[in-house]
Amino acid sequence: MQEKGTISVSTENIFPIIKKFLYSDHEIFLRELVANAMDASQKLKRLAAIGEYQGEVGELKVQVSIDEEAGTITVSDAGIGMTAEDIKKYINQVAFSGATEFIEQYKDSDQGDSKEIIGHFGMGFYSAFMVADKVKIVSLSHKEGAEAAQWECEGSTEFEISPGEKKERGTDIVLQVAEDSKEFLNKARLRGILDKYCKFLPITIELDGEQINNTTPIWTKSPSELKDEDYLAFFKELYPMSPDPLFWIHLNVDYPFNLTGVLYFPKITNNFDLYKDKIQLYSRQVFITDEVKDVVPEFLMLLRGVIDSPDIPLNVSRSYLQSDANVKKINGYVTRKVADKLEELFKKERTAFEEKWESVGFFVKYGILSDEKFYDKAKNICLLKNSEGKYFTLDEYREHIQAAQTDKNENVVYLYSNDPDKQDAYISSARKQNYDVLLLDNQMIDSHFVGSLESKIPNSSFKRVDADTMDKLIDTGTEKESVLSEEEATKIKEVFEKTLNNNALNLQVEALPTDELPVVITVPEFMRRAQEMAKTSGMMGLGEFPSALTVSINGNHSIIQKILKAEEAAQKALVLQAYDLALLSQNLLSGANLTKFIERSVEMVGK
Amino acid sequence: MQEKGTISVSTENIFPIIKKFLYSDHEIFLRELVANAMDASQKLKRLAAIGEYQGEVGELKVQVSIDEEAGTITVSDAGIGMTAEDIKKYINQVAFSGATEFIEQYKDSDQGDSKEIIGHFGMGFYSAFMVADKVKIVSLSHKEGAEAAQWECEGSTEFEISPGEKKERGTDIVLQVAEDSKEFLNKARLRGILDKYCKFLPITIELDGEQINNTTPIWTKSPSELKDEDYLAFFKELYPMSPDPLFWIHLNVDYPFNLTGVLYFPKITNNFDLYKDKIQLYSRQVFITDEVKDVVPEFLMLLRGVIDSPDIPLNVSRSYLQSDANVKKINGYVTRKVADKLEELFKKERTAFEEKWESVGFFVKYGILSDEKFYDKAKNICLLKNSEGKYFTLDEYREHIQAAQTDKNENVVYLYSNDPDKQDAYISSARKQNYDVLLLDNQMIDSHFVGSLESKIPNSSFKRVDADTMDKLIDTGTEKESVLSEEEATKIKEVFEKTLNNNALNLQVEALPTDELPVVITVPEFMRRAQEMAKTSGMMGLGEFPSALTVSINGNHSIIQKILKAEEAAQKALVLQAYDLALLSQNLLSGANLTKFIERSVEMVGK
Repeated sequence: MQEKGTISVSTENIFPIIKKFLYSDHEIFLRELVANAMDASQKLKRLAAIGEYQGEVGELKVQVSIDEEAGTITVSDAGIGMTAEDIKKYINQVAFSGATEFIEQYKDSDQGDSKEIIGHFGMGFYSAFMVADKVKIVSLSHKEGAEAAQWECEGSTEFEISPGEKKERGTDIVLQVAEDSKEFLNKARLRGILDKYCKFLPITIELDGEQINNTTPIWTKSPSELKDEDYLAFFKELYPMSPDPLFWIHLNVDYPFNLTGVLYFPKITNNFDLYKDKIQLYSRQVFITDEVKDVVPEFLMLLRGVIDSPDIPLNVSRSYLQSDANVKKINGYVTRKVADKLEELFKKERTAFEEKWESVGFFVKYGILSDEKFYDKAKNICLLKNSEGKYFTLDEYREHIQAAQTDKNENVVYLYSNDPDKQDAYISSARKQNYDVLLLDNQMIDSHFVGSLESKIPNSSFKRVDADTMDKLIDTGTEKESVLSEEEATKIKEVFEKTLNNNALNLQVEALPTDELPVVITVPEFMRRAQEMAKTSGMMGLGEFPSALTVSINGNHSIIQKILKAEEAAQKALVLQAYDLALLSQNLLSGANLTKFIERSVEMVGK
Repeated sequence: MQEKGTISVSTENIFPIIKKFLYSDHEIFLRELVANAMDASQKLKRLAAIGEYQGEVGELKVQVSIDEEAGTITVSDAGIGMTAEDIKKYINQVAFSGATEFIEQYKDSDQGDSKEIIGHFGMGFYSAFMVADKVKIVSLSHKEGAEAAQWECEGSTEFEISPGEKKERGTDIVLQVAEDSKEFLNKARLRGILDKYCKFLPITIELDGEQINNTTPIWTKSPSELKDEDYLAFFKELYPMSPDPLFWIHLNVDYPFNLTGVLYFPKITNNFDLYKDKIQLYSRQVFITDEVKDVVPEFLMLLRGVIDSPDIPLNVSRSYLQSDANVKKINGYVTRKVADKLEELFKKERTAFEEKWESVGFFVKYGILSDEKFYDKAKNICLLKNSEGKYFTLDEYREHIQAAQTDKNENVVYLYSNDPDKQDAYISSARKQNYDVLLLDNQMIDSHFVGSLESKIPNSSFKRVDADTMDKLIDTGTEKESVLSEEEATKIKEVFEKTLNNNALNLQVEALPTDELPVVITVPEFMRRAQEMAKTSGMMGLGEFPSALTVSINGNHSIIQKILKAEEAAQKALVLQAYDLALLSQNLLSGANLTKFIERSVEMVGK
């Protein structure tokens, strides 16, 4: 009783699904119809080139027109056209050949030229039914003596075919737009769709007589034909509202995959810009998507421009894309081209490179953080900027600070500020000691970048400039001399403890330089990093993490002497004022405490 | 020559597409197979209930098992089963009946019980081929005297059917997992998929013998059967890491659409939480998605919980969803239920409502901003909190401030602070004048909310507490007396102009109370709002917008007298100090200027 058989697909059931679910965006119908018209035109060109078509080729443009009154959209081409037999063979057989991937996979089983026509009228044609309740094809084939044919279908699986009235070679597709799709009869709407998908098709596309596309976008040309102006003009064409890009990379590879394109490094002026414009993905000059996740490495998704490749599988799931061998190779290729371009720029024009670092650095740092291998490629061109605005490579910088900033454990201490405005007092303290301070003030990336550098550079230690008093930030092991006797030190500590009355403070008397503040407040590096981590991970509400402040009383400051000698009321006011000034320099005085400080200051000034 | 015909779908071409593109996530295969097994079980129950099946029903659980060595996954049920004829009829005809929407649409054309079986084995079954290169069905029908049947297919359209070896009623689906899908042989991976999609199916589901689902989740029960603990426990089941919700709404409607569910108001502790957990959408207890955009109003997407409705069309495009009549009704229903619940809470337990306002207010304000109609429903329960922590309804608050805060144009001036910490000095100034200050300090929403309230409450004007000096914020038309003569006023203005040497400042001498600061700095309301808009819209880089500060010199303050009398050096120091203290109270002193202020203050204190 064993039996073999063939699974069959029930057409009446599947047809409504094709119509409704073929694409999630209904506007795609126009891309499909225009792409079909373009294919028909290009095939005619090819037939003429190999002598199989002897007639006049003429102008092969594709015309889209709207008749609002009749409620129709017409897409016309002057391409190969179809006879009634062609239509019967190819249109009435829903062949599902639209997906690029699918053609590739099944090309061996196609016979001769049928493949070309199937490419012409595959699934794409049926997307017309997503927006139309009646579709008419009127076509005149390029074949000698051919007669015009007309095909009509009202969206069921029933169709009608009859002689057509058409004098000129080519195909008209006429859509009777459905009630719920009237939006597509609006010219601005159609123009928007054509702009999105068909802006760079290789054959002239007209909407109501007006050309809408650039048939030879720069990525289809050779870099040797192009000037800077061309690249800049193309960038403006893609992103009219954006400032000029910093530089660009022309991609062009044939093997082992086919890929062309131009990638731009944008100027990043603020965080809003980051995800605004996107890289556009094309397949043979037809726009596919601006969702390039998995096609380029994550850190390069912030680039702008165009990638055109028939080798990226479309319409497949993300997990599939991630494991696709071509996609992996493309990923590697793009990363390498970017690294090469950066190195070239750095070597040829270091000054220009430094000027662009603000934006470029963002990519480089992001790349180092997200791609282990990228660090090796980028470590020689990764720059550090100090508080005086000078740039150093990683090696240069180590050289620069090694003598003055090596501590007693032979670690080189990299001092940095993540907010030069807020940490101004600390930066100037460091400068007074001839220490150098790095600016690592990109909020989005630098706190991670600090951690990454510290782990990558041997014998290095990164400390934020306000993490401790200077002599402890870089502990060279030499003792500072104190003007206070031991009893005085104990006494002053007691006075502060009693006045401030706050057990959470870590109070200590230190011998700081006389030109330092009377009181210096610092937050230990490890503590601050833990807080930042808790914040970023969202594990705790802000401020829930205990904040441990170190309060260093500068025993060598004259005000401390004054406090020791003052009577109780004056002593209290002086301690509070010195403490508040220290909080202020660490940007920690606010709210009612700030109001009190201001009132006390006004009173002191008024005296 | 006119001809009619039928469009046909070529099976060999479409089959690979079904296999590859059916769902973008391959893991869905398990949901489909388990849902089919469940359907088969429920149908048996029904047949038994109406007497069409006379045998023993037994335990109807669905079993999923992995044989890692053999490389197979098996899904077994004890449901209705299929004879060889059933299999030929339904499995070999890819009927595309999986989509709920599709069944709904075509149910009239189905005959009798065939519909049920089609629902059982529609498209869903074929999703098995997304992960398997060979699929075997072994089934024994519930029909009396039925013989077991076996069906095998290796992913082409060819199949083989033969007698099977199965003694017990039901169906086993055995997948020979393909090389590129080995991940699904991992038990933890399968468990994860079952947890996601099948956690609340109404029939017991076991993975390798262990039950994974809760067959009667609370939304399938009546509210009268449930206690608070049940709702809280279910919340924990859905979101184990989240703090307890504030309250919940049990949804239950039959007409004009079918919808059940429980929505929770979460406690919002910080912005990270906002989009972390999501409402889950189910269809007959099968998880569909947590992308509920368009199904609930945007402002309610921040709620948590479960919505179960067979009436929400699945797998259709977003634009389609937005215009779907059922979705619109569901949207309106959910909004109304939420508004009713809020009103009930407010009326029944105002104190508890106030305690929850921090989180609840966020939804209410978001709703008012995004849904014109919601304001009418929410205006009586929308609360305002003042700087003393008291809550008022909109009407109560107007009543509260009307007497003291009506200006000479009969506008009631609502003073507010968006940062009580930074604006502490201004708030205490306002309190000294017996004005009330509102706290509108949610950074994400309150600046928009202020604009919205101002436009909705007639004769109202919202001013941030630091937008002007107090007497001008609420201009009652009464003149303040000045201790300065006109010449003195001119003189002091000249001294400030010369010392500060900054044309951008709008300097003016005013008669402020003697306990106000010697200098008060304000940013006009309209100017600040324009800056905020520019920032939010990203139209300008931060800080590019000119910042116009109004500097009011308090002619009545004793320090101004001191400045007038001082010699030049002291005069300069006093002016700078008074100005810096004013900047400080507006949080505008930073960087090098703050460092200089601190140094100057240390010097003054040290004298």
